[in-house]
Amino acid sequence: MALRFLVVWAVAAALAAAAAPGQPRRVSLLLTNGIVITQDPSSRVIDRGAVAIDGRDIAAVDGADVIASAYSGAETIDVHGAVIMPGLINTHTHAPMVLFRGLADDLGLMEWLQQYIFPAEAKTVSPEFVRAGTRLAALEMIESGTTTYADMYYFEEEIARVTKAAGLRGVLGETIIRFPAPDARTPADSLARTARFAAEFANDDLITPAVAPHAMYTLDAATLKACRALADRLRIPALIHLAETEDEVNGSRKAHHATPAAYLESLGFWGPRTLAAHGVHLTPADIALLAKRGVGMSHNPESNMKLASGTAPVEAMRRAGIAVGLGTDGAASNNDLDMFEAMRQAAFLHKLASGDPRAIPAATAIRMATIDGARALGLAKAIGSLEPGKRADVIVVSMEAARQTPMYDPQSHLVYVTRGDDVTTTIVNGTVLMRDRKVLTLDRGAVIAEARAFAARVRDAVR
Amino acid sequence: MALRFLVVWAVAAALAAAAAPGQPRRVSLLLTNGIVITQDPSSRVIDRGAVAIDGRDIAAVDGADVIASAYSGAETIDVHGAVIMPGLINTHTHAPMVLFRGLADDLGLMEWLQQYIFPAEAKTVSPEFVRAGTRLAALEMIESGTTTYADMYYFEEEIARVTKAAGLRGVLGETIIRFPAPDARTPADSLARTARFAAEFANDDLITPAVAPHAMYTLDAATLKACRALADRLRIPALIHLAETEDEVNGSRKAHHATPAAYLESLGFWGPRTLAAHGVHLTPADIALLAKRGVGMSHNPESNMKLASGTAPVEAMRRAGIAVGLGTDGAASNNDLDMFEAMRQAAFLHKLASGDPRAIPAATAIRMATIDGARALGLAKAIGSLEPGKRADVIVVSMEAARQTPMYDPQSHLVYVTRGDDVTTTIVNGTVLMRDRKVLTLDRGAVIAEARAFAARVRDAVR
Repeated sequence: MALRFLVVWAVAAALAAAAAPGQPRRVSLLLTNGIVITQDPSSRVIDRGAVAIDGRDIAAVDGADVIASAYSGAETIDVHGAVIMPGLINTHTHAPMVLFRGLADDLGLMEWLQQYIFPAEAKTVSPEFVRAGTRLAALEMIESGTTTYADMYYFEEEIARVTKAAGLRGVLGETIIRFPAPDARTPADSLARTARFAAEFANDDLITPAVAPHAMYTLDAATLKACRALADRLRIPALIHLAETEDEVNGSRKAHHATPAAYLESLGFWGPRTLAAHGVHLTPADIALLAKRGVGMSHNPESNMKLASGTAPVEAMRRAGIAVGLGTDGAASNNDLDMFEAMRQAAFLHKLASGDPRAIPAATAIRMATIDGARALGLAKAIGSLEPGKRADVIVVSMEAARQTPMYDPQSHLVYVTRGDDVTTTIVNGTVLMRDRKVLTLDRGAVIAEARAFAARVRDAVR
Repeated sequence: MALRFLVVWAVAAALAAAAAPGQPRRVSLLLTNGIVITQDPSSRVIDRGAVAIDGRDIAAVDGADVIASAYSGAETIDVHGAVIMPGLINTHTHAPMVLFRGLADDLGLMEWLQQYIFPAEAKTVSPEFVRAGTRLAALEMIESGTTTYADMYYFEEEIARVTKAAGLRGVLGETIIRFPAPDARTPADSLARTARFAAEFANDDLITPAVAPHAMYTLDAATLKACRALADRLRIPALIHLAETEDEVNGSRKAHHATPAAYLESLGFWGPRTLAAHGVHLTPADIALLAKRGVGMSHNPESNMKLASGTAPVEAMRRAGIAVGLGTDGAASNNDLDMFEAMRQAAFLHKLASGDPRAIPAATAIRMATIDGARALGLAKAIGSLEPGKRADVIVVSMEAARQTPMYDPQSHLVYVTRGDDVTTTIVNGTVLMRDRKVLTLDRGAVIAEARAFAARVRDAVR
């Protein structure tokens, strides 16, 4: 898919280059007068820069004057000194769980799951519920600058339809789990649903279907192998939870005399375009193994802290060459989808854990939330940085708040004082989804009213 | 001071009670139709409640209908379902350091201090600088719902004047330190400045002057004793940094064969109305000692994480009966003054550190940011909860954002998904400082422009 786009872009670029000198090339959208944080291989930051967008692609990234002389936009947005950067990539969530946010906090994991989340899911999760939840999650993500997210939930084809309608990019996996699920009696049902879902969205611009076995401890060996086989056959990514808790590791050692990562290796599960979420309790051998297999990792610092799961060995994974992206996890365990908080928490957590204030500096946290997240999802050729030929997934972030004053270093501010609410404009695939804080692809009032109506049902379910 | 207020209130309340039945008592301001989180001794939450404010005091807190029948307001603010709660109390900051925020991050403490903060302070800190910084900090605090803050910096009388003009409440201490400071050549100079400052603001409604010895490792025994004597003589609080880093503890053990807390005890330093900031590295004996002496503690989770100082034994301190408030620390090491983030981080950090997701539940984090902070500062009779007779320090917090939808539990949302930007109205001492996000006591544009001008000087100073 990405390759085809690149060819299209190369042709377009060649045509543009052939335009007469002095005649600006007409493009669909210019963003100008911003601090451009490219996340390109040289980590270029342009103090007064601009981005030219043509259709779904980035046409050029350069100084504002250079762009002004070479391009004219059908539409131009002057960002007046705000930051222009790649859209944020949330590598792990369960979007519809926004409808359970704050339902029950500050509990032990088993109490939380068995008294609240499982009963609520059993009684409320339906296609309608999933659509309402995804609309709310999409609203929140667009409002907070997330342009791509990876998801694992139920009725994932419904999530995909809503995601596409909202204009977001998603790597979306139907959860496959041993227990009866709201949308499947057996894992075999879920595998069949995954195949249908993948067919519906084959070659889609925005939606990348994925195979999403829940975890090694909630599936048998045959199903885990079947998941890998389906991902290989359909050439789609695989998503799985890995080593989130000590209990998972202890259970795996007891049942299989192997860590979760090693057990999955014994099944031939690991391969590229595979994303493991959490990776809190990994051995050095696990890390070497995941690096060798080209597995991407989603680090979820807020969820790992709130659920007291532990501290993932992020620096060791990065040193081993693993692409480590950031995720929020579901809003039932965070409780929001704000990737700026994920960046801040990653920087804070690893300074504390290592005892070294130099750990995960701001620029690294931003890379994790953009290009490294794209690498972790196998999408680095298409997204994660502002470079000509990539998809135009771009956000504009205001730096006007009192708490952002003064500004010595925009990257410091993005991580240590900025929130999702500071995002003013969100663009995905060249389409403006939010402008001046107004979301254009969703009816905000209707989405919120619908979510509140479903919340009443959730309340009844756990009463 | 607080006692005098209580007498005034008691008289007013008696007069009100004597009013004819059925005739509503006229008060200056009503806040109505909110979820009232009182933080009173029974932790009452009123689903559709109201707060009656008369002059600088809270006249009544009750259901909206009860208040409507008993009070009429010269002004009424219908908050339409938002949260009404006590203003947040930031128990430790260095307000003017907002002008250094993001100047240098992700560095070792000594590099950060010696290459950036100390040179910048030496070349830029002046009365003008301190005024500009305090105005910016006050703007940020009012915008994020902080109504009282404890401060330690230089030219503290300037900080006090700006704080009073902005309408905020402050417990403000002139920093006393061994080295030449921007406003004093010697600790004796600083003690004299403290006495003058305390005289200027004696019996002030908003400003409580304090004695602020920097720390046990930056002052000799004679000065620490002189600080305690001055606080006793003037009957004002004392503020000090305590056991922030392992280095401080190791240095104290080497120099004094005692922990910092025990060394200060040997000098007779500890007493009530004394606030220690950080308390990261405390022994069980230190905790017992601080509890016995009635010392308050300021916990600064974000600063402790960002500077990799460590995890303070907050649960042990709370079990010992110490009043533990929350602080942001200066914006050079946080990098903002948002107390909602301090609450969230306290909840996250202690779950992680204890391995128990039940640690510091949301309601506890809110208590730490309100009534426990008031107790830590010796102000619990006047502020920290919404109760008749206390000062009217009240904030209104919107719950309308997508990330706050749906809402099952307002206290969960306040800690896990709310930010300072959600505060719509800030009231201190009965005066509305911000209404509908517009700050009324500061010229926002001028404050930000002035801060940016000083930032240029800071940039030059560290070049």
